[in-house]
Amino acid sequence: MSTALAPRTRYQALAEELAQAIHAGRLPAGSGLPSLRECASQRGLSLNTVTAAYRLLEDQGLIAARPQSGFYVRSVLAEPDASLRRQPSQVQGSAQQQLLAEVMEAQAQPGMLNLALAIPKGPRFYPQERLAKVTAQLLRQQPEWLSRYALPPGPLALREQVRLRAQRLGMALRAEDIVITHGAMEALQLALRACTRPGDTVGIEAPAYFNIYDLLASLGLKALELPTHPRHGLLMDELEQAMADGRIDALVCMPTVHNPLGCNMPLANRQRLAALAQQHQVPVIEDMVYSELQYAEPPAPAARAFDSEGWILVCSSFSKAIAPDYRLGWIDAGRYATAVRHLKFASSGGESELLCQSLAAFLQSGHYDHHLRSIRRLYEQQVASVRGLVARHFPEGTRATQPEGGFLLWLELPAGVDSLALFRAALAEGVVIMPGQVYSQGARYRHCIRLSCAQVLDERYVDGMKVLGALACEAAGVSEVS
Amino acid sequence: MSTALAPRTRYQALAEELAQAIHAGRLPAGSGLPSLRECASQRGLSLNTVTAAYRLLEDQGLIAARPQSGFYVRSVLAEPDASLRRQPSQVQGSAQQQLLAEVMEAQAQPGMLNLALAIPKGPRFYPQERLAKVTAQLLRQQPEWLSRYALPPGPLALREQVRLRAQRLGMALRAEDIVITHGAMEALQLALRACTRPGDTVGIEAPAYFNIYDLLASLGLKALELPTHPRHGLLMDELEQAMADGRIDALVCMPTVHNPLGCNMPLANRQRLAALAQQHQVPVIEDMVYSELQYAEPPAPAARAFDSEGWILVCSSFSKAIAPDYRLGWIDAGRYATAVRHLKFASSGGESELLCQSLAAFLQSGHYDHHLRSIRRLYEQQVASVRGLVARHFPEGTRATQPEGGFLLWLELPAGVDSLALFRAALAEGVVIMPGQVYSQGARYRHCIRLSCAQVLDERYVDGMKVLGALACEAAGVSEVS
Repeated sequence: MSTALAPRTRYQALAEELAQAIHAGRLPAGSGLPSLRECASQRGLSLNTVTAAYRLLEDQGLIAARPQSGFYVRSVLAEPDASLRRQPSQVQGSAQQQLLAEVMEAQAQPGMLNLALAIPKGPRFYPQERLAKVTAQLLRQQPEWLSRYALPPGPLALREQVRLRAQRLGMALRAEDIVITHGAMEALQLALRACTRPGDTVGIEAPAYFNIYDLLASLGLKALELPTHPRHGLLMDELEQAMADGRIDALVCMPTVHNPLGCNMPLANRQRLAALAQQHQVPVIEDMVYSELQYAEPPAPAARAFDSEGWILVCSSFSKAIAPDYRLGWIDAGRYATAVRHLKFASSGGESELLCQSLAAFLQSGHYDHHLRSIRRLYEQQVASVRGLVARHFPEGTRATQPEGGFLLWLELPAGVDSLALFRAALAEGVVIMPGQVYSQGARYRHCIRLSCAQVLDERYVDGMKVLGALACEAAGVSEVS
Repeated sequence: MSTALAPRTRYQALAEELAQAIHAGRLPAGSGLPSLRECASQRGLSLNTVTAAYRLLEDQGLIAARPQSGFYVRSVLAEPDASLRRQPSQVQGSAQQQLLAEVMEAQAQPGMLNLALAIPKGPRFYPQERLAKVTAQLLRQQPEWLSRYALPPGPLALREQVRLRAQRLGMALRAEDIVITHGAMEALQLALRACTRPGDTVGIEAPAYFNIYDLLASLGLKALELPTHPRHGLLMDELEQAMADGRIDALVCMPTVHNPLGCNMPLANRQRLAALAQQHQVPVIEDMVYSELQYAEPPAPAARAFDSEGWILVCSSFSKAIAPDYRLGWIDAGRYATAVRHLKFASSGGESELLCQSLAAFLQSGHYDHHLRSIRRLYEQQVASVRGLVARHFPEGTRATQPEGGFLLWLELPAGVDSLALFRAALAEGVVIMPGQVYSQGARYRHCIRLSCAQVLDERYVDGMKVLGALACEAAGVSEVS
């Protein structure tokens, strides 16, 4: 834990400076770096410091050592190809269901290295000991909670914490409008049921959170996949056109730390999104489950922050940052708040008072901010490291996102690679990945995969990435790069 | 607690014998009982024993003392009027939503005597201390559970317990077909979504579980209210006709301890129900949340016990007998099992491993059967006592169900009484009841109310019932009977 919180050391500062120069093109691919000794004497640093910095850059896939000729800058991972996101396309039903079931089954097999699901794995990513302690204490003090029906909207103590946390993301919510849900998934489900009717068409991003297809299909809703830029999210002109043409009755999107792209929508686009929702009276469901895992300070405000008329319904959860097992999420459904409260009551009842109050007590304790700072830094480092592994082991021409938060990485492999075949080949080697086919209907992301960087990057992880890289090289018909 | 578990004493045995004679008509209303001394000497019992038995019968509203002339049999509460259940009637939308919201709001007010919701209230009805202990122990031993995503279908340990318990109700389920849900409400919701499409018509009982109207409306489903006998449940000829005419695409029913009627469908009707479902290929959703609270031993088997082709989807929960706060239910969706598993995954994710494993450990411990025996007896006694209060304080002509299990009582007041007006008048006196209007659309149950007998029947409860009875007498235009 301590490394994640330590102030930057000299070697880290040096590595960061060089990394920035590489990303900015001031140190182009193929150019040589000063030798360890040269660098140390130029900058008045110890040889150990420079060695450590170069090793870090190697780990990140940014530089490599050529035998007898020192270090050089590697070809950096390019961004995903924005031109892939062309026209909106209409989707009905969920062809991905079978494939998703196959992935879920694969993960359930014992002994797999699971790079597929967005599930941090390991005690350092969650404050489990402290939360367990708080919960045990409440069990001792309030056993009578177990014998009560918890009814929506959920305990005020927790809704009040949600309200307070939302302020940091620019939102002035009221505790009485918030409903505690069974994770963000139920929040999303209730939001859709509240603001659409069967037969409606819902705009979604492409790629989008894979469960959305099943969810829409099960509610009798059609989907319109909207063009989504790998760095800026939804393309606003195309979105405006779809709204103006009446082609969508609602929109689901992730303006902040998009899943799977990891990108943040620019501030101006968030403002425009809120204005468009209002102008066209199209409800927008804003999924912000990764918003508190943004690397930058201060964090980007939610699109809802710019919505004065309640057209934006915000959904979130505590599963990504505190405790997935408690399955607690929330929704502020804006002008659909009453409908959502009724639906929650009629569809699944309330959430456990014990779990809600435990979470509220943890949030009140102030440990949450400490924990958040720690995991944000940790995830940022881990994502950089996994990008490094990709740069070293994956075929030339592989592109990767540069996430603004969270722990997911989206890769575009050379065009010929079929990610479903890669998924199956990797499975045979004990590695589970999420194939791009679940992220869009049709073949648009056939050559893409999503990786989770939220586990301990130990030898097993590194070996798994090497295996995956070798399989990808084979599929692309090239030998490994380095 | 101890009284609930004690073997029947002599006075209880005597009271029971006399009660049976009264219910069977061998001691008709108005007939005199032997004096205390006569009875004692006839039966060779002590005077104390006979006095205690007579007092119990008085409490149950079955007998009364006439000054200077001994005890006589009171007019017993008649059964609800079966002729009220006429023709099937088509329903669309949920007119009850507003009324239900009003009731929910009333209950949330502090200091109310809540006779409305089916929520046992008080530590003796739930094994909270033991369950809290089990949960705290697992928190100490397995804090890592908090940091894992629990995925459907839920832990095998709990599904295995469900399978074992289902055997007692005649069902041979397989653990792999069971999905753990967020209470029976989510089970019902998933079942409906799996076996219907928007626009379909679902057969329901009238009266039925009040949330069903909201649920159906929110899923774009129409309802057909089917005639339901107060003692036998669904009228089978009318049901068969509706199925044969293709008027219903699915059916939701509670063959065992019906809510609100408390009745059990006769065995032959259960068999016929299963056969009809199969013959007409109409999925039947069997809600069995009160099945383990049947008073009789052995309990009636589920309708599902007679279904060999998976047309009956069974839903249940542990909220009524163990811990409402954990919100754990389950479904075996028969031929819709795969669809339900997918829907659960896409709609709300899994249930908390901590809560599931705690419940499984409690079920494994054997304390559950002990607890069940205790509360079954307790609820049976309490329901009898509340019937006694009704007989003593409510207007002449009030009818009441004689439940086969659970803790709910359904009253039919004289025809002129408007239960919504009664609800509001009672609210002003600090008593919350469930008005009959939420149990059917239209005016069919306008003069009915549902009472919960699952709280400590202390002075406050008795006073509340007196107040309610007086208001009902006023509304019926008669003075109190006794």
